[in-house]
Amino acid sequence: MASGILSALEEALAEWSTLLGEENVVMDLPSLRAAATTTFATRQTVAGIIRPASSVEVQECMRIANRFRVAVYPVSSGKNWGYGSRVPVADSSIILDLSRMNRILDFSEELAYVTLEPGVTQEQLYAFLVERGSRLWMDATGSSPECSMIGNTMERGFGHTPYGDHFANVCGFEVVLPTGERIETGYGRFAGAKATPVYRWGVGPVVDGLFTQSNMGIVTRLTMWLMPAPECFEALYFRCDKEDGLPDLIDALRPLRLNGTLRSSIHIGNDYKIVNALRQYPWEEMNGQTPLRGPVLDELRKRLNIGYWNGAGGLYGTRKQVAEARRLVSKALKGKVSKLQFLDDQKIRIAGRFSGVYRLVTGWDLAHTLEVLKPVYGLMKGIPTAKPMESVYWRKKTPAPAQPDPDRDGCGLLWFSPISPARGQDVDRLASLGSSVLLDFGFEPMISLTLIGDRTVACVISIAYDRDVPDEDARAAGCYSALQRSLSEEGYQPYRLGIQSMDGLRSEDGYSQVLRTIKNALDPHNVMAPGRYLAAKARV
Amino acid sequence: MASGILSALEEALAEWSTLLGEENVVMDLPSLRAAATTTFATRQTVAGIIRPASSVEVQECMRIANRFRVAVYPVSSGKNWGYGSRVPVADSSIILDLSRMNRILDFSEELAYVTLEPGVTQEQLYAFLVERGSRLWMDATGSSPECSMIGNTMERGFGHTPYGDHFANVCGFEVVLPTGERIETGYGRFAGAKATPVYRWGVGPVVDGLFTQSNMGIVTRLTMWLMPAPECFEALYFRCDKEDGLPDLIDALRPLRLNGTLRSSIHIGNDYKIVNALRQYPWEEMNGQTPLRGPVLDELRKRLNIGYWNGAGGLYGTRKQVAEARRLVSKALKGKVSKLQFLDDQKIRIAGRFSGVYRLVTGWDLAHTLEVLKPVYGLMKGIPTAKPMESVYWRKKTPAPAQPDPDRDGCGLLWFSPISPARGQDVDRLASLGSSVLLDFGFEPMISLTLIGDRTVACVISIAYDRDVPDEDARAAGCYSALQRSLSEEGYQPYRLGIQSMDGLRSEDGYSQVLRTIKNALDPHNVMAPGRYLAAKARV
Repeated sequence: MASGILSALEEALAEWSTLLGEENVVMDLPSLRAAATTTFATRQTVAGIIRPASSVEVQECMRIANRFRVAVYPVSSGKNWGYGSRVPVADSSIILDLSRMNRILDFSEELAYVTLEPGVTQEQLYAFLVERGSRLWMDATGSSPECSMIGNTMERGFGHTPYGDHFANVCGFEVVLPTGERIETGYGRFAGAKATPVYRWGVGPVVDGLFTQSNMGIVTRLTMWLMPAPECFEALYFRCDKEDGLPDLIDALRPLRLNGTLRSSIHIGNDYKIVNALRQYPWEEMNGQTPLRGPVLDELRKRLNIGYWNGAGGLYGTRKQVAEARRLVSKALKGKVSKLQFLDDQKIRIAGRFSGVYRLVTGWDLAHTLEVLKPVYGLMKGIPTAKPMESVYWRKKTPAPAQPDPDRDGCGLLWFSPISPARGQDVDRLASLGSSVLLDFGFEPMISLTLIGDRTVACVISIAYDRDVPDEDARAAGCYSALQRSLSEEGYQPYRLGIQSMDGLRSEDGYSQVLRTIKNALDPHNVMAPGRYLAAKARV
Repeated sequence: MASGILSALEEALAEWSTLLGEENVVMDLPSLRAAATTTFATRQTVAGIIRPASSVEVQECMRIANRFRVAVYPVSSGKNWGYGSRVPVADSSIILDLSRMNRILDFSEELAYVTLEPGVTQEQLYAFLVERGSRLWMDATGSSPECSMIGNTMERGFGHTPYGDHFANVCGFEVVLPTGERIETGYGRFAGAKATPVYRWGVGPVVDGLFTQSNMGIVTRLTMWLMPAPECFEALYFRCDKEDGLPDLIDALRPLRLNGTLRSSIHIGNDYKIVNALRQYPWEEMNGQTPLRGPVLDELRKRLNIGYWNGAGGLYGTRKQVAEARRLVSKALKGKVSKLQFLDDQKIRIAGRFSGVYRLVTGWDLAHTLEVLKPVYGLMKGIPTAKPMESVYWRKKTPAPAQPDPDRDGCGLLWFSPISPARGQDVDRLASLGSSVLLDFGFEPMISLTLIGDRTVACVISIAYDRDVPDEDARAAGCYSALQRSLSEEGYQPYRLGIQSMDGLRSEDGYSQVLRTIKNALDPHNVMAPGRYLAAKARV
């Protein structure tokens, strides 16, 4: 009966409606347009949104997609800010929205894990733990509280606690394959296996990694490990007022990660990054000119008490472990920072009540430190926050609304996230290259540098702009391309890609060929997220 | 020209000889028989051994294997003791021996890694680090110093330092696929990428796990992370004299791993395991009877100062970190152990010189503790040891030779290694089930329990016997099957398989089907290690 692409799509939509109910097949134009809108220019349209409520429904959705050769693009919460939100890589795709699958299926206080579905958000998991009076902490990212826990993990995102490497702290996936088959990874393949939620590798080849940054399967469930709240937590905060102080900082911090003194990420932001976290673009001081630089930036740095480089991190352990970590951090950073401060819940309580007195006695303007640290302080304890979302409104001329939605509000945001060895000279080279490219294109180089592992720094460079300003989309896209080109040439590869840059992956190396071989075997009709992290092949 | 399997094999051997030189194609019967001999009964014959010296040669070897449809079984050092040594899973295979590829290709003291080939052994890497005066420690296993570092990692083996989970501490694989293609994983696929040796995930889907416990590729190079020597190291040693003391021990240790106080594995051995480590079977006291049990075992426990449960672990850090860890361990184990002792290099030096005086002053028979701890003490500092190999001669009536070779000497050894959640009741159930099965079959249940992760215990149950005793091979095989059956039924799955038990993996679940789909795509003629960790399909 079907002939031509349009009617195949129509037939598929009819079958999905029968399967899921019409209320779970979204076809109204405003919704489709919203779903096709992200924080940078895209041309893809969205042909529909389907919303299964269970892995069995996801399986059936994929079988229908195969029958009618319709491309399906899975999203969890769809809040992949800076990398493309919900927008599919291939044009005319159907978005498969997993947000209705938001059950927390298993939880163990004793073994410190939770088993959940892709619709579970940061705030939902946080509330779940608080309600139970759990002594376990989740790891949160600085993205919005409505972000999916699994979605971020599948993009191999990272957070702020010792469990910051999300993909390294999950196991036991349930995966729906492109053809609609369903598998369980790790020990989950054996009915009744006791170690499914606690052991990553299972027995035999490990396929979990295949389903991250991928278009080879939909993870419909996994187990995420949680961190027992430590007896003691302290945040550390430092500032470096030397513009060329970065290499020494990195080289001082690396040994502390390598020897286990620092158990979590240390985040370093440059001056632009912190200004951006604290306020919107200084339109007035800059007389409407961009980019921000020169005396106005110097003045802001001074007024806001910001260094060229500003770091934050957490110390976790018993009272004595934390005290020793404090000693070691202080020793390592001596002479390398202009200011180093430690902060705990008690100090925050006192400062909140007697801020003037506190300042008088200690000489420390805690209220100010708090303003800088606040959004990060909670994150280091696994508490999600909506605060960083405001910074996306940087170049807007009106303040961020109470319910920020960068897609809707025309905020421009592109993230480029290269990885560097945690070595001063490398990180320095990366940061200065990134800065010069952004300034050349007229954007502020907001750069964060995170020691995500013992040997690695993840750099996130934000291109933040106002999409309502004519030609800015094109300029931002040009800047992104230049950034990707020049950093790749120097050997700094991104750890994650935006939907607009998937073609930047090499397609003729052996690795890409292996991925394509596996993709073809698992998804013969190429219906799952064509082009995502793998150059698309023509559809059959 | 070729007709029939034999002449295809002959032709392939002729091509391999041309490629590698005749000296690297081993065909003499004694060598082939030795290679087909492991520590338990097998029927597979070995059709030849080929010894490439580079990944380019490995590629060419695989192309020849495909041309003539000859099954090739890759081994690194071939010392996969207890799991099948070098013996291929499929009959009439060619062993592809990687031991000539033993170069150390890259090393960074600063970023703490080494890049090596599969022929590099534990003792070779150790010597390399000592020669350079490196401040880095490798992780070693209790297997022989001639074991391959990569071989163990590919079997997802574990060691004794904070880097004990080997697969979790490697990246940047070079892999030769079954068809002879060569790929690089992680960032290695991008020429000049700076983070190749320090970042595991690269960008896009991660395939590394596919090549562990697998027959889908030969890892011909990888980067292994090393641990900076801590300022201070102390070993802890405890003994529990209550037969039912195990659950409390596990429940006391788990929180210490979860909160980061213990950074490495804790190994617990039952009484049998320690007796086995210290001496051969007490034939005389037992009047030639087996298994060891009853009064003779009680007497041995007493005489050798062994508890029902005996643990060892390492504390790593600064002086103060170690002191705090000592305090926390002491507190957690109070009332749960009969004896808890700490040991460092200085104590060992003193005891070596004035053992009598030391005992008099401290009341601690350090010399005895040392005898128990010695092989493990070095391992906890990443020093390989040949000592544990001797224990494989347990049931032999002559002592282990200076150069032990369990395959050659008719030592019987089967290892079954299930994983349990690190929870007292589970570990206890696992250990007692395992014990009763072994005793039923007339073997001593030597059991080690290792907290390999924050939430998991790996249990290694040894079936140690004398292959020269008639019918013992069959009895051991029966015991192994019963063990696998009864533990699997209770939910305890092995983390690793012996070559005789690969069929124990489920073959009809979705996971196996996905593996088979990928295997078929990557190895269309099924020439690489057929049957290894995946039920074999008929060869084309």
